[in-house]
Amino acid sequence: MAASHWMQALSVMTLAVLLCAARTNAQGQSQLNLMPAPAHVQLGNGSLRIDSSFAVALTGHTEARLDHAVQRFQRQLSLQTAIPFPAKAPPSSKSTLEIHTDHASKEVQEPGEDESYILKVTPDGATLTAATPLGVLHGLQTFLQLVEVSPEAFSVPAVTIEDSPRFPWRGLMIDVSRHFIPLDILKRNIDGMEAVKMNVFHWHLSENQGFRAESKKFPKLHGLGSDGLYYTQEEIRELIGYARDRGIRVVPEFDMPGHSTAWFVGHPELASGPGPYDIERKWGIFDPAMDPTNEKTYKFLDQLIEEMAKLFPDHYFHIGGDEVNGKQWDANPKIQEFKKSRGLKNNDALQAYFSQRVQKIVTKHGKAVIGWDEVFIPGVPKDIVIQSWRGQASLAQAAAQGYHGILSNGYYLDLGWSAARHYAVDPLGGAAANLTPEQQKLVLGGESCMWSEYVNPENIDSRIWPRNAAIAERLWSPQTVTDPASMYTRMNAIGARLEWLGLSHGRSYRLMLQRIAGLSSPEEFAALRTLADVVEPAKDYTREQTVSTEPTSATPLNRLVDAVPPESAAARAFSELVDKFIAGGCHEAEAEARLRAQLSVWRDNDAKLQPLAQRSFLVKEVAQNSQDLSALGTAGLATLDFIAKGGAAPDDWKAQQLAAIQQIQKQKAQLLLMPAPAVQKLIEAAATGGACSTAKP
Amino acid sequence: MAASHWMQALSVMTLAVLLCAARTNAQGQSQLNLMPAPAHVQLGNGSLRIDSSFAVALTGHTEARLDHAVQRFQRQLSLQTAIPFPAKAPPSSKSTLEIHTDHASKEVQEPGEDESYILKVTPDGATLTAATPLGVLHGLQTFLQLVEVSPEAFSVPAVTIEDSPRFPWRGLMIDVSRHFIPLDILKRNIDGMEAVKMNVFHWHLSENQGFRAESKKFPKLHGLGSDGLYYTQEEIRELIGYARDRGIRVVPEFDMPGHSTAWFVGHPELASGPGPYDIERKWGIFDPAMDPTNEKTYKFLDQLIEEMAKLFPDHYFHIGGDEVNGKQWDANPKIQEFKKSRGLKNNDALQAYFSQRVQKIVTKHGKAVIGWDEVFIPGVPKDIVIQSWRGQASLAQAAAQGYHGILSNGYYLDLGWSAARHYAVDPLGGAAANLTPEQQKLVLGGESCMWSEYVNPENIDSRIWPRNAAIAERLWSPQTVTDPASMYTRMNAIGARLEWLGLSHGRSYRLMLQRIAGLSSPEEFAALRTLADVVEPAKDYTREQTVSTEPTSATPLNRLVDAVPPESAAARAFSELVDKFIAGGCHEAEAEARLRAQLSVWRDNDAKLQPLAQRSFLVKEVAQNSQDLSALGTAGLATLDFIAKGGAAPDDWKAQQLAAIQQIQKQKAQLLLMPAPAVQKLIEAAATGGACSTAKP
Repeated sequence: MAASHWMQALSVMTLAVLLCAARTNAQGQSQLNLMPAPAHVQLGNGSLRIDSSFAVALTGHTEARLDHAVQRFQRQLSLQTAIPFPAKAPPSSKSTLEIHTDHASKEVQEPGEDESYILKVTPDGATLTAATPLGVLHGLQTFLQLVEVSPEAFSVPAVTIEDSPRFPWRGLMIDVSRHFIPLDILKRNIDGMEAVKMNVFHWHLSENQGFRAESKKFPKLHGLGSDGLYYTQEEIRELIGYARDRGIRVVPEFDMPGHSTAWFVGHPELASGPGPYDIERKWGIFDPAMDPTNEKTYKFLDQLIEEMAKLFPDHYFHIGGDEVNGKQWDANPKIQEFKKSRGLKNNDALQAYFSQRVQKIVTKHGKAVIGWDEVFIPGVPKDIVIQSWRGQASLAQAAAQGYHGILSNGYYLDLGWSAARHYAVDPLGGAAANLTPEQQKLVLGGESCMWSEYVNPENIDSRIWPRNAAIAERLWSPQTVTDPASMYTRMNAIGARLEWLGLSHGRSYRLMLQRIAGLSSPEEFAALRTLADVVEPAKDYTREQTVSTEPTSATPLNRLVDAVPPESAAARAFSELVDKFIAGGCHEAEAEARLRAQLSVWRDNDAKLQPLAQRSFLVKEVAQNSQDLSALGTAGLATLDFIAKGGAAPDDWKAQQLAAIQQIQKQKAQLLLMPAPAVQKLIEAAATGGACSTAKP
Repeated sequence: MAASHWMQALSVMTLAVLLCAARTNAQGQSQLNLMPAPAHVQLGNGSLRIDSSFAVALTGHTEARLDHAVQRFQRQLSLQTAIPFPAKAPPSSKSTLEIHTDHASKEVQEPGEDESYILKVTPDGATLTAATPLGVLHGLQTFLQLVEVSPEAFSVPAVTIEDSPRFPWRGLMIDVSRHFIPLDILKRNIDGMEAVKMNVFHWHLSENQGFRAESKKFPKLHGLGSDGLYYTQEEIRELIGYARDRGIRVVPEFDMPGHSTAWFVGHPELASGPGPYDIERKWGIFDPAMDPTNEKTYKFLDQLIEEMAKLFPDHYFHIGGDEVNGKQWDANPKIQEFKKSRGLKNNDALQAYFSQRVQKIVTKHGKAVIGWDEVFIPGVPKDIVIQSWRGQASLAQAAAQGYHGILSNGYYLDLGWSAARHYAVDPLGGAAANLTPEQQKLVLGGESCMWSEYVNPENIDSRIWPRNAAIAERLWSPQTVTDPASMYTRMNAIGARLEWLGLSHGRSYRLMLQRIAGLSSPEEFAALRTLADVVEPAKDYTREQTVSTEPTSATPLNRLVDAVPPESAAARAFSELVDKFIAGGCHEAEAEARLRAQLSVWRDNDAKLQPLAQRSFLVKEVAQNSQDLSALGTAGLATLDFIAKGGAAPDDWKAQQLAAIQQIQKQKAQLLLMPAPAVQKLIEAAATGGACSTAKP
């Protein structure tokens, strides 16, 4: 496949300007909220009006997928404007948007196909031209993002966009095994992927905690390994068709030889240790692993992979391969003997042996292997793809030897990172930056990963969206598009629009707070909302370390940590305001007034939250966080008073305040109080005296 | 059928107290938010804890519907608590809720079947006993409404509830013809109906604007009469099964001889005037009507009704019958001759002739007729049911002659009335109050009606919910349950809970405001929200009278009038506060402070809204409403200043203010500014001087 991530000669220098400044004109019109940012944008004059006469015409290559795309486009346009477009336009009517498709794409979508498109909008009409239906799909999403309300009507600004992706592999992985995620929720996430031009859905179908795909050959796999929560083959085909319609490949993952306890509930004979096995209910890395020394294991896998290779049309088949702790292997004398007899020095070598055997089976059934870093073993065939949870160094190492890779390290959505932090991670950053241009072509892109220890059907959308849009932009847009401020503006816009597609990140937050408070009216639990808006779940894998009872798949995800978005917009806005205030020498009255208003709300919030804490155990759990927020408000206001007086704050006062902040910054109830660093910065500025002169950020 | 709406000896006197006071105790626990209020409630001590060990057992009569009900109950309980209950409880586990069903209900549900249940909850467990599955369904909903968050856990208070409905026919009609409403939206509304114990879904399937049911015998009916927007017979069967599972009958309506233009697109030979016909796109009463003098009309209807009578199992078949203007009949010499030859004095007599013929056809196919007032013709068979859009007098007249009726007058959801106004309408009020007890039994209940000129899939939920819960309570609960304050508290609670079922009344409001403003963050369009929260759509049928271009089915429903809830909670709260302030002699400092805070927000809001009006034509449309709101704020604050000074406001000032209020009270952009009457009251109080002494409400 030809990795098409080389930018053509693009005027990307002007892009950030166009995206973020040109449209914020005297009429107060919004900027172009395009995400991912296109490779090339040229603004024109005027705009194209959207009204009920809007009609679309397809020319050139036609296929059912294009008809579906136009129907979906019109439905979506209707959602955005509430204009009811007739189901069928009268044949005589002039088309507003003319789409020309040059030729078909591959029957089974492949990485590296031509996804480019050119969209031209003038006040008189629009044209969308693409080599293949894939480009058309992307161009239609761009058009939808251009629709805005104006002083006269709904309209699209005149613009010419030439666009193509930087990387051919732009994926989202969803772990449906630790918590089962129903098909309709996967579908709306695929709708979200289409909106941000992602093109690979990586379906993590098996784990210690569940085997989620129906196997007709081995019905005990899903029958005993899923609590009845699995996808039928019919549903799987339905999802694949749904994704294909949206230009998205579906790569199935069957993780082996570790992460496989759920397989062993029905098939203990595959395991390296004696059974019986139960579905794992806890989180972590567990001992059970397939027996790589037993020929029956390979016979079984041969039949299963044959079945699954037929079910999933994509050329790539993910065999997992991560995190085998080797304990079952070490404890099994037969396996130890096998290692010795074959000269396999350690468990890595044993796993390499297993991996090679499975890769041969996958190849035999017409597929190419993709797997986590661990599958990259000297001598494996060149057609494998390495998905790196370890980082760019692994990719660089593989690419140096001629192997393809995609990056997931840095894109783990479950770690609770900010969008900006994900956004700063580049598949060709770090060690990969030193690769030759030819080697860099081997880095196909990346995948964000939604591991599901702490997500369920209710809150999964809020963990994926809108942050996933920032990762999608990293994988699509020119490498030079890196401004976080522009990214946040556009991410919030697309985040709001995604709710038209049924994604529930906004809605579930409100409903979960309602449940936590046990009150029905948002006014009644406003104090909880104020607190919730400025806390974030603890980052990385620290959550398990701080709970008294070990979480399991039966643990209700109904706490504040489960409800709040991974990133606090309110805290970010406050932090920016503090920076602005300090940078301005701490005497800008308007910034000070806004800071005081915000800090006063926080100071007074705990008194309002206490009655809620008394009636609900779920609010009671965050009572300390609420007290901390009030303390932050009080400290911030005191600091502003010092600054207003003009003198430096005394050292002992500063020390006392900073000690308090230090306590406040510790996670409680698995939550972090996000405005704490900004208040600390304010205190430090005050302590320098004068107009914060030495404390500029 | 036996109308079972006679209350047993119920201690209803204590009911309002129990519902609204008993639970607001020292611990700040919420009241029992049950809606509809049960016939008899006896609170116990303590509460039953809900945790992951919760299990349900079915005893006595069993059937698939009960299994489904338990699964649905557990899903819903899981939504309310986020506790993941195992799909299958281990067989050994002790049940928390034991359900006993005495016997089956009728295969095809009938009005008047036993729907009673007894629910007993103690700290050790709960039992639900019912004669039939219908009672079990109702009892499970009551249990779900009892679940609350407590200082320790989720729990249900100890309570004994003996409950049965006052009326056997408690319906919701949805007009799917003027705007098509997709099946999934009907389903979630049926979920909502189940939650409030309604038991009839009246499916208004044909109209001038659309024929929405697939006919295999006459495929041109839906084929040419629906723009492709119709339900297949398979979908119809699916919905009927879905409703039956929830204890809800489905009554189809095929409106004739008027309201039938859409039939004539494919079958002009049925009409009384020459064709051809197009699907009607406008609203109102139109001329086309079936030809009642043509035997081919009855032959056609015989075949169609035969087909539909098989498709819809319910005993009742709705033939519409309303609003024939007679113009086509008058214009057709053949019809005039027919009238003369048969001695039919006027068009009413002609319609009566038609109605009798159709009723015979319906009866021939094993069904009983239900129709609007017009079908009540002297001498019709006693098994018909009259659905009255005219009022209780019609029902009383019919009942006096031994005919069954249900009330819809007073329950039209499209008129934009307050919940309290609907709530005050009693099927046995007005003229029906004078009926003998035996005659009153003939009044079977009522149906709320959602006519769909101005509702579409996006805003329909917000027009039905939560107000429909108030009507549901009127039809279920004892006649003595009438306190609006208690109703509003409980309606808001159930309204919030209904969102767990996917009903979108909360969500769509937010998204529609987002569209109107063209901005993605609620903070950015807060000023629009402030205005939107205090306006209501114009009441009754005044909307058409005030628009410059006649609305049609192609008119986008994207204006503020389409987005705001029919009833403003903020305006109601303000009005109550004004009443309280005046009643307290206008010198209660806390009430005054709250009034000032609210009035200041309104006064200052227009300046914030103006930038939004400059960027969006949909905001610009309500610029005058916004100025009016600011003027109200200014006037209210000036009034409070006068009152604070202690003297009476000068007459000329008062006159000037009241003249301004009069202008403000006029609808603009089809919206009413709801706080205006309360501000007027305040001005009038101030004008009396002193401590508002003569102005007590």
